Amino acid sequence: MESMMIYMPAILAVIGLIFMWVKRSWVLKQDAGDGKMKDIASHIYEGALAFLNAEYKLLSFFVIGASIALAGIAYIVPTTHYLIIVAFIFGAFFSALAGNMGMKIATQSNVRTTQAARTSLPQALKVSFGGGTVMGLGVAGLAVLGLTAFFILFFHYFMGGVWTDTTQMTVVLETLAGFSLGAESIALFARVGGGIYTKAADVGADLVGKVEAGIPEDDPRNPATIADNVGDNVGDVAGMGADLFGSYVATVLAAMVLGNYIIKDMGGNIVDAGFGGIGPILLPMAIAGAGIIISIIGTLLVKISSNSAKEAEVQKALNIGNWTSIGLVAVASYFLVTWMLPKETLTMGFFVGGAEGFEYMDISSIRVFYACLVGIVVGGVISAVTEYYTGLGKKPVLSIVQNSSTGAGTNIIAGLATGMISTFFSVLLFAFAIWASYAFAGFYGVALAASAMMATTAMQLAIDAFGPIADNAGGIAEMSELPAEVRERTDILDSVGNTTAATGKGFAIASAALTSLALFAAYVTFTGIDGINIFKAPVLAMLFIGGMVPVVFSALAMKSVGKAAMKMVEEVRRQFKNIPGIMEGTAKPEYDKCVAISTEAALKEMLLPGVLTIGFPIAIALIPMLFGYENVLIAEMLGGYMAGVTVSGVLWAIFQNNAGGAWDNAKKSFEAGVLINGVMTYKGSEAHKAAVTGDTVGDPFKDTSGPSMNILIKLTCLIGLVIAPILGGHTETDIPNEGASIEMEQNINANDAEDLSEEIQVNMTSEGNKTIAKVRITTTRKGETKVQQKTFTGTKAEVEKQVQALKDKA
Amino acid sequence: MESMMIYMPAILAVIGLIFMWVKRSWVLKQDAGDGKMKDIASHIYEGALAFLNAEYKLLSFFVIGASIALAGIAYIVPTTHYLIIVAFIFGAFFSALAGNMGMKIATQSNVRTTQAARTSLPQALKVSFGGGTVMGLGVAGLAVLGLTAFFILFFHYFMGGVWTDTTQMTVVLETLAGFSLGAESIALFARVGGGIYTKAADVGADLVGKVEAGIPEDDPRNPATIADNVGDNVGDVAGMGADLFGSYVATVLAAMVLGNYIIKDMGGNIVDAGFGGIGPILLPMAIAGAGIIISIIGTLLVKISSNSAKEAEVQKALNIGNWTSIGLVAVASYFLVTWMLPKETLTMGFFVGGAEGFEYMDISSIRVFYACLVGIVVGGVISAVTEYYTGLGKKPVLSIVQNSSTGAGTNIIAGLATGMISTFFSVLLFAFAIWASYAFAGFYGVALAASAMMATTAMQLAIDAFGPIADNAGGIAEMSELPAEVRERTDILDSVGNTTAATGKGFAIASAALTSLALFAAYVTFTGIDGINIFKAPVLAMLFIGGMVPVVFSALAMKSVGKAAMKMVEEVRRQFKNIPGIMEGTAKPEYDKCVAISTEAALKEMLLPGVLTIGFPIAIALIPMLFGYENVLIAEMLGGYMAGVTVSGVLWAIFQNNAGGAWDNAKKSFEAGVLINGVMTYKGSEAHKAAVTGDTVGDPFKDTSGPSMNILIKLTCLIGLVIAPILGGHTETDIPNEGASIEMEQNINANDAEDLSEEIQVNMTSEGNKTIAKVRITTTRKGETKVQQKTFTGTKAEVEKQVQALKDKA
Repeated sequence: MESMMIYMPAILAVIGLIFMWVKRSWVLKQDAGDGKMKDIASHIYEGALAFLNAEYKLLSFFVIGASIALAGIAYIVPTTHYLIIVAFIFGAFFSALAGNMGMKIATQSNVRTTQAARTSLPQALKVSFGGGTVMGLGVAGLAVLGLTAFFILFFHYFMGGVWTDTTQMTVVLETLAGFSLGAESIALFARVGGGIYTKAADVGADLVGKVEAGIPEDDPRNPATIADNVGDNVGDVAGMGADLFGSYVATVLAAMVLGNYIIKDMGGNIVDAGFGGIGPILLPMAIAGAGIIISIIGTLLVKISSNSAKEAEVQKALNIGNWTSIGLVAVASYFLVTWMLPKETLTMGFFVGGAEGFEYMDISSIRVFYACLVGIVVGGVISAVTEYYTGLGKKPVLSIVQNSSTGAGTNIIAGLATGMISTFFSVLLFAFAIWASYAFAGFYGVALAASAMMATTAMQLAIDAFGPIADNAGGIAEMSELPAEVRERTDILDSVGNTTAATGKGFAIASAALTSLALFAAYVTFTGIDGINIFKAPVLAMLFIGGMVPVVFSALAMKSVGKAAMKMVEEVRRQFKNIPGIMEGTAKPEYDKCVAISTEAALKEMLLPGVLTIGFPIAIALIPMLFGYENVLIAEMLGGYMAGVTVSGVLWAIFQNNAGGAWDNAKKSFEAGVLINGVMTYKGSEAHKAAVTGDTVGDPFKDTSGPSMNILIKLTCLIGLVIAPILGGHTETDIPNEGASIEMEQNINANDAEDLSEEIQVNMTSEGNKTIAKVRITTTRKGETKVQQKTFTGTKAEVEKQVQALKDKA
Repeated sequence: MESMMIYMPAILAVIGLIFMWVKRSWVLKQDAGDGKMKDIASHIYEGALAFLNAEYKLLSFFVIGASIALAGIAYIVPTTHYLIIVAFIFGAFFSALAGNMGMKIATQSNVRTTQAARTSLPQALKVSFGGGTVMGLGVAGLAVLGLTAFFILFFHYFMGGVWTDTTQMTVVLETLAGFSLGAESIALFARVGGGIYTKAADVGADLVGKVEAGIPEDDPRNPATIADNVGDNVGDVAGMGADLFGSYVATVLAAMVLGNYIIKDMGGNIVDAGFGGIGPILLPMAIAGAGIIISIIGTLLVKISSNSAKEAEVQKALNIGNWTSIGLVAVASYFLVTWMLPKETLTMGFFVGGAEGFEYMDISSIRVFYACLVGIVVGGVISAVTEYYTGLGKKPVLSIVQNSSTGAGTNIIAGLATGMISTFFSVLLFAFAIWASYAFAGFYGVALAASAMMATTAMQLAIDAFGPIADNAGGIAEMSELPAEVRERTDILDSVGNTTAATGKGFAIASAALTSLALFAAYVTFTGIDGINIFKAPVLAMLFIGGMVPVVFSALAMKSVGKAAMKMVEEVRRQFKNIPGIMEGTAKPEYDKCVAISTEAALKEMLLPGVLTIGFPIAIALIPMLFGYENVLIAEMLGGYMAGVTVSGVLWAIFQNNAGGAWDNAKKSFEAGVLINGVMTYKGSEAHKAAVTGDTVGDPFKDTSGPSMNILIKLTCLIGLVIAPILGGHTETDIPNEGASIEMEQNINANDAEDLSEEIQVNMTSEGNKTIAKVRITTTRKGETKVQQKTFTGTKAEVEKQVQALKDKA
């Protein structure tokens, strides 16, 4: 059993995918309604496909370009293997495939949900949540399958399927990082492009339809209405799916990297209970695999029985499934940790006081389980905090409602302030998570906290994707002019979906933050630096620049929405003017043109933010190289940049998401009526108009720039991880079987005068005709010890000359 | 000459103060007008005094409380001397005195400017700029005089007026830090409290006066109008003055600390051209002193001759004065650097690659001058960048104007985006400043870049303070119903004042940012840590928390404005209702009640942000101590927090100031009319209303929360600096004449097995009956060296027992 454990996560993933396929068949077998319903649904379905096809075209160019760049890295860096390109392409392909399947099922479940809602609410929930389940299991199954399959492949290719040493495993994991990078690149397109798409379509449809032409939302006469409905799926289904796909893969990968580091700390070989000495590396994959089965159990628990159920019962059904799966992950983590890790203790390097303070400690392996618990708890609490700051009827939203009575200005200030203040508990919670999970089990603990939190991804995504399906179902009911009771039933589902959307966003931020931290830790181990010292001016400068990038990125995303929406407005105006009979309902609008415009504008507008995301880390690595900076310093600079992006990105993600969510619900509060200064106030009042203005600002916050932060911080850290081998790290030790090696070590006491002593250690290795000398100079001056490291690369003669010069100088 | 150089800056400061007094007498001798003018002006003057008196009352309590806390620190930490309390009280007193003088002259110059404007624009400029000059020289003169006088005092008290060693000088400078802390505490009250005051009065006056009662701005029938006019002085004169006073003192102090560190790096003694071996410490004071005289020259150049001059000529006159003084500072820096620093080279420790990489380098002292140039250039460019993003007629403001045509929502989005994008160049510029000035001359270079930039503080402040004086003058002209030509003349001055206000804010942010960096560097040298490694989880957690604090602080400040404004609204409504004849002009409103309400609300509302600012760093230092964390680690955690606050604070300062400034000018653009979609659009249009909403959001951004960031980041770093001695640092070496000392050093090679060697170094010192042992354990394991440091404190027997236990374990 134990020796086969490496295959287990992949097998569980396949089981998840089989279950998904069964569920998918069931959903597709449901009645898809008739006449107008079918017609509208097919427009949405085709619009979604149109967006996907356009996206894939752009993606192909991007994947080709990035592959060439990766080939360049593989050419320059001896330890980076060309297989990273294969992993990258498959990472992109798997993520795109998951998105494709998710979009298709979502745009097929919607009309079936409408049809089910004609007779039964429980059945409507079953269909819509079934669609969500297909999406969730598709994403989680493909993520785990892809990652584990490539791990098995590379483990056999590079190491023959048996443990050799941590250096070889590092090569395996560095190559595997390509898969994660591929997946996250797709997320950039889906989340950022999708975020722009959905808001451009929404704003465009509203501005001309509602405001200029005076027709209601979801009216089939509005040429942009299909684009709007497609947008819900593009943003909340495909975008969220790709986001979590990326987090899932990156978290597990980072935990594997740090697991390998534990083995290194324990002397390069460990004895475990039969897992071939790679227990700490397999553990995160095993938790991910178990999470898929647990999520299936969770989804099976989501059902209601009464046709007259209200929001509370639907929410309760979702909660039961959710909390059960979270609880089961905790239990599974306990058994997996105690089973798979070395029985007695783990040896880990911990940082203690002082810049050079580092201590090896023996810790009980159960502490890894405690770290998992930290992740699970933080994931839950952060969702609750998000729900508090954005929920209907809660104090922050009520306060925004009150501030709407004095106009849009005070409404905006209240909304901004709410988003800003909401960072307080969220950030304290993250700080606690970092601190506690590290205290329990080092950075391996941080990565496993993230892995345990992400284990229920399939379940989370099922809950998330169900919302837009229900929303679409309502839209179809409206457009098809079905009886009011149908819309009432879908509205119950939609309303619950709005709540789950908010908590889902909290979960996505938490996952992105913890993923970035895990990647950050993995980055440091890959580069082989001892830490990132922000007291060094260039590192501090990069921390500043890193802090700035999320702010500028958000601004660009917000502006993109405005530009894309304007193009949509022009097209809708053109159709109203040029197609006679549209307003009378006798002529059909050209829905596909609007879809095409939103698609093109979105994909075009995401270029600049994309370039910013990818370009900055690469520039920070390359430009100082041209100036002859040492690799170790560049590695620290890039690390400082990554930290800046993560800290600032998490802040702006929370700020924008929660402000946007709070504005949205402040506006919705007016639908049922709110008490302002003792007067019941409804839609259409001046206060409501002010709240609508707030929501206009909040829309790009919560659907475009806010969620984009997740991708920005993860992708930044992943690019850092892929660049890491260029910046040195394990190149100091020679790669067996890839070149002759000579090693020499010399200790020279240059000067034993009373208050100055200098010691030079030289470690010289060669690969092919390239020689690398790593020189370590320890200077003790007036009792203070300073250590300098220098690396020389070149032909053997050149390097020896430089080392000799250094010795002569000493 | 050289040996008297220590007194020179103080003498130059006194010359500045004498010139200020002469100028003040001249301004007060000008005609203060007659009748109604005099009446209104005296209301404003008394309102300003009322605010100051209330503030001083609160301040006294704060100063007493803080003094007790400092006494506690002095009691616990042997190297912190009780004199720090004296320095603290005088720092607070000097800053308050400067604010008091500034507020008085500003509220006396305003009516004299109005009177002068009745006949002559050149004379009106002379009076208003004269008032500004008094303010500028008062602030700069008292800052330099106070700092240098206390340095001379402590230098004689602790060292007998002659150089002994760097440890003693550290005690001098740590005690001097109290002066800086006192000054910055006043800035907290003036900037944050003042920011809340000015906006509460402004919003309150507008909401009831303009909106409800329909009377124009600055109408004497509005009870809040005096509070509003007082507010301009409280925020822009006293607030800005205290902000720059704090920056000025802190920058010079930090540069002195780093100058002392250079002497340490050079072996503890240097040979300079007769400055008693403290040339690097005196240099920043000398530059500050020279800056005062240079600023006087600059102010003398500001004049116009034609009575029909327009904005451009007034702006040109100010520019000539400004650029001349900046140029002269560059020249003066060159001569002072080459004269006062050791002739040949300076030895400095630089960080190079690797966490432990540190290198001593000999650099030419002229490179310190290059660092000064970096500061001067960055100060100028940042003002230009601010002017671009917030200036009338520039692309960003025009874009906000265009976006106003589609409503308040799009106006807000455009304003937010402008503020966010404006961080791009500003942050790149800061990153460049850090990098370049460090590359030229280490952190001493960073501090001197800041010092050189701040040298023209008197001139900058004269330009800044002139704006609100002109604004007030216009208000008085309006309220006194003077002929339109008077208002036209003051409007020219006011319009130029708006531009200088924007660039002045840019200068204040740049100064706060560079000051914080210099303090940050000084902090690291005080604590004696080797760096701040954000790869340590607790340090990273603090970086996150630090990043969050400016966001929450801003939100609290924004909310405070809303609350305080509501109280003002209620009071104005009450007066309109209860005092018959107000609207007919037959009864006088109770101006003083409104002033009192604004004052009380502002001072009350600033408590929570104040507690946040002061409480967090103290909690971060104390809480881990209770958990037994090592001091070195706590020092790094606090450093991580400081870095987080600085990076995030600078970003939010730029974002909020520039967004607020841009919204303000977008609104003002409608006064002259703007072309939107080919139609000239003016005040009163729908687009203008949208722009007014944007300005409502922007007001607290640019006048309250934005400028508060400066204080937050400086005060955080200063508190860190004052706490630093608690966290260790130079307590390892014994303080001469304060206790018996024993020293022992032992090298123990515990284990010389092939791949593990351990070396323990013990340094034991005692003070009174307290013994401190600093243990350094160097472990070499598989070729990797790790160094741990541990500190034990207690009785001699206890400490020896602990050290022995450690040796036995090894």
